[in-house]
Amino acid sequence: MATGVSVENINPKVLQCEYAVRGEVAIHAQRLQQQLQTQPGSLPFDEILYCNIGNPHTDAIARAKKILSMIPGRATGAYSHSQGIKGLRDKIAAGIASRDGFPANADDIFLTNGASPGVHMMMQLLIRNNRDGIMCPIPQYSLYSASLALHGGSLVPYYLDESSGWGLEISKLKNQLEDARSKGITVRALVVINPGNPTGQILDEQQQYELVKFCKDEELVLLADEVYQENIYVTNKKINSFKKIARSMGYNGDDLQLVSLHSVSKGYYGECGKRGGYMEVTGFSTPVREQLYKIASVNLCSNTTGQILASLIMDPPKAGDASYDLYEEEKDSILKSLSRRAKAMESAFNSIDGITCNKTEGAMYLFPRIYLPQKAIEVARAVNKAPDVFYALRLLDTTGIVVTPGSGFGQVAGTWHVRCTILPQEEKIPSMISRFREFHEEFMAQYRD
Amino acid sequence: MATGVSVENINPKVLQCEYAVRGEVAIHAQRLQQQLQTQPGSLPFDEILYCNIGNPHTDAIARAKKILSMIPGRATGAYSHSQGIKGLRDKIAAGIASRDGFPANADDIFLTNGASPGVHMMMQLLIRNNRDGIMCPIPQYSLYSASLALHGGSLVPYYLDESSGWGLEISKLKNQLEDARSKGITVRALVVINPGNPTGQILDEQQQYELVKFCKDEELVLLADEVYQENIYVTNKKINSFKKIARSMGYNGDDLQLVSLHSVSKGYYGECGKRGGYMEVTGFSTPVREQLYKIASVNLCSNTTGQILASLIMDPPKAGDASYDLYEEEKDSILKSLSRRAKAMESAFNSIDGITCNKTEGAMYLFPRIYLPQKAIEVARAVNKAPDVFYALRLLDTTGIVVTPGSGFGQVAGTWHVRCTILPQEEKIPSMISRFREFHEEFMAQYRD
Repeated sequence: MATGVSVENINPKVLQCEYAVRGEVAIHAQRLQQQLQTQPGSLPFDEILYCNIGNPHTDAIARAKKILSMIPGRATGAYSHSQGIKGLRDKIAAGIASRDGFPANADDIFLTNGASPGVHMMMQLLIRNNRDGIMCPIPQYSLYSASLALHGGSLVPYYLDESSGWGLEISKLKNQLEDARSKGITVRALVVINPGNPTGQILDEQQQYELVKFCKDEELVLLADEVYQENIYVTNKKINSFKKIARSMGYNGDDLQLVSLHSVSKGYYGECGKRGGYMEVTGFSTPVREQLYKIASVNLCSNTTGQILASLIMDPPKAGDASYDLYEEEKDSILKSLSRRAKAMESAFNSIDGITCNKTEGAMYLFPRIYLPQKAIEVARAVNKAPDVFYALRLLDTTGIVVTPGSGFGQVAGTWHVRCTILPQEEKIPSMISRFREFHEEFMAQYRD
Repeated sequence: MATGVSVENINPKVLQCEYAVRGEVAIHAQRLQQQLQTQPGSLPFDEILYCNIGNPHTDAIARAKKILSMIPGRATGAYSHSQGIKGLRDKIAAGIASRDGFPANADDIFLTNGASPGVHMMMQLLIRNNRDGIMCPIPQYSLYSASLALHGGSLVPYYLDESSGWGLEISKLKNQLEDARSKGITVRALVVINPGNPTGQILDEQQQYELVKFCKDEELVLLADEVYQENIYVTNKKINSFKKIARSMGYNGDDLQLVSLHSVSKGYYGECGKRGGYMEVTGFSTPVREQLYKIASVNLCSNTTGQILASLIMDPPKAGDASYDLYEEEKDSILKSLSRRAKAMESAFNSIDGITCNKTEGAMYLFPRIYLPQKAIEVARAVNKAPDVFYALRLLDTTGIVVTPGSGFGQVAGTWHVRCTILPQEEKIPSMISRFREFHEEFMAQYRD
């Protein structure tokens, strides 16, 4: 190897950055997948079951084909406006206005390659050095910890309470904020993920009001990750966008700096490979918005196919349209199926000794807690692995099931979890659960304290 | 406006970042475009002619349709491997090997949303603080200065010599490197753009050998921006990839850390809205490549449509294929047309008093030098504009022609340029040039010293 750039002298922020859902377990799974292809029968299972990352593609192909066939022949090969094609942003703004009952403006929309670049853009804007911080829920989707590390900022945690279904207490938030401030951290924003990833809970309206007021009072940018806004599996709660909540409190762009992220990768559409998404940015001055525009323009524009899809999810067929009944039927069928899978997997996990699992109210994940025996923890430490990584690697090697270790999302010290998607095909769930159960019982027997 | 985030307290790196090709002139052009739509006849011209940014879409639509119709029905909706779909990377590696006559490996390929994210990833990897620097040609494509500013690194300039057709002298490079080092800058990489952007020159083979040796001797990463490798308009030079040059010198991954960038946005295909591109990364240790993989994975993957297009440009129809003759004919016709436009516009610029213009040997731009009168420079300064920005805004207001001011690319102090694409339709060039000439003569008459 040439000698100029080595792992010792690259940007240490890159080393510090962790991105759990594509980490060690996922890499090992790719290796095993290849082994299954080249040496069939060489492993104790004959397929890899990816439960580690949300890839709801299977369900979406038929629906996507129909959507695409409805688009008039658009020339998508040219660069667009850096914020995205104006007509598509108009459609998105109209969709937001219709969802919330409050006006939205196409100039506030930035179309992005999936939702992630919006997070990067905001971090680029806000993080000046490691004394700038952003409040993130723990557990959190690893995009936030990873991009904070890459941008060199500080993660200020606020803990979700597992015992109350990943609940949120504003008083604790306030303590964490003051604690960070007392350490000289300038807290610039608060991330909220609703429904939660990896935790799957849906915030109560009351909690949303309190969060909005907290951000307003403390002058924090509210970064609302609302990519799972269509994924809801309970009847006693509903999803309110933070924009709707803020506007219904009478707060507008003069009171609150609010960023809402959305994506075509989730919901009932799941076109994750297309990299479509947007952020709606309100409450920022024109000079700041011009700076955001500049950041967007450095990569010229997001891909136009993804732009079109982002507009379509905010402008679905309406009652009276020829496709409406079919659309409703498919949407309903996909969401009902996801809901059944969530419930089936949740009760299966809860039926396994040494595992507890909160209800998945929304999003696409279960985040079961694994009560690991002390002996397993010690063995994991001895081989220099986080105990949940050790568990997940053993699970993969034994069963072919891929989950993401909880340590990549953050968890209360001494507790261990895995994130498991609700996306396996329904007919595969019973055998997947029985493989999981068998593995878990053997694992526990081996390491019983 | 809410008060938390203001332009005074956002990340100052964002403020410092300039991105000329989407800057003030381009924004003003969008405004005028809108005015032409809402109030036809209110301006002294009836269309905006975008010569500021490479958007070769017009020519490419027909070709792109044919390419796409040749792709078997692929399911493109799922997340892919973070480096891109393996089969597509295989095709790209085979295309590189066939182009260079030296082997290439799919594991070295990172598929990206256009070429720009590759540059960001390398900067993220290399730039630890403002004492890390990257050598860039001046003039340079503003992506490099913009992303260096965003990542907080130092731009170490090396000047291209306008009088010798934007030539490059290694001895001067060495001086600039030593000068930077004497100031405490750790120079980590050297950017070379071949063919040049905005300058359009093609490096001699000898210069390429010297550059490779220079980077090897000085342990600099060679960042080779080769996105215009198909755009060549002279018969006495040819494009050699830096990988081919390095391998033909006997250098391999043990001697040289080399990154080559390519894109589907240029060449004879020009599918810029699709955001397809790749970087080939050789000479880095496995731990460093794992870190690069991690950076790639933070945004999950690039869009799959762009990935497919990137593989197609490196795997075009071959002799014997049904489409080969048509492909050759179309490619040849597009490139010949671009070549005619380059020559026509170059001689037109050179026929205008007070403008000189080097030959465009490759890429998609002319970079004429505008000899501005002192009085114009003073008036520009008085209204707080760079003189070439002042000139370009006046050109736009008077004629509807959009060019990018040279100051966004860097230029020798006291010289002024504009970057003008060779992409206007051929039949529009004569009238465009006569409008330009008329404007320039009036401008010079108004500000004559």
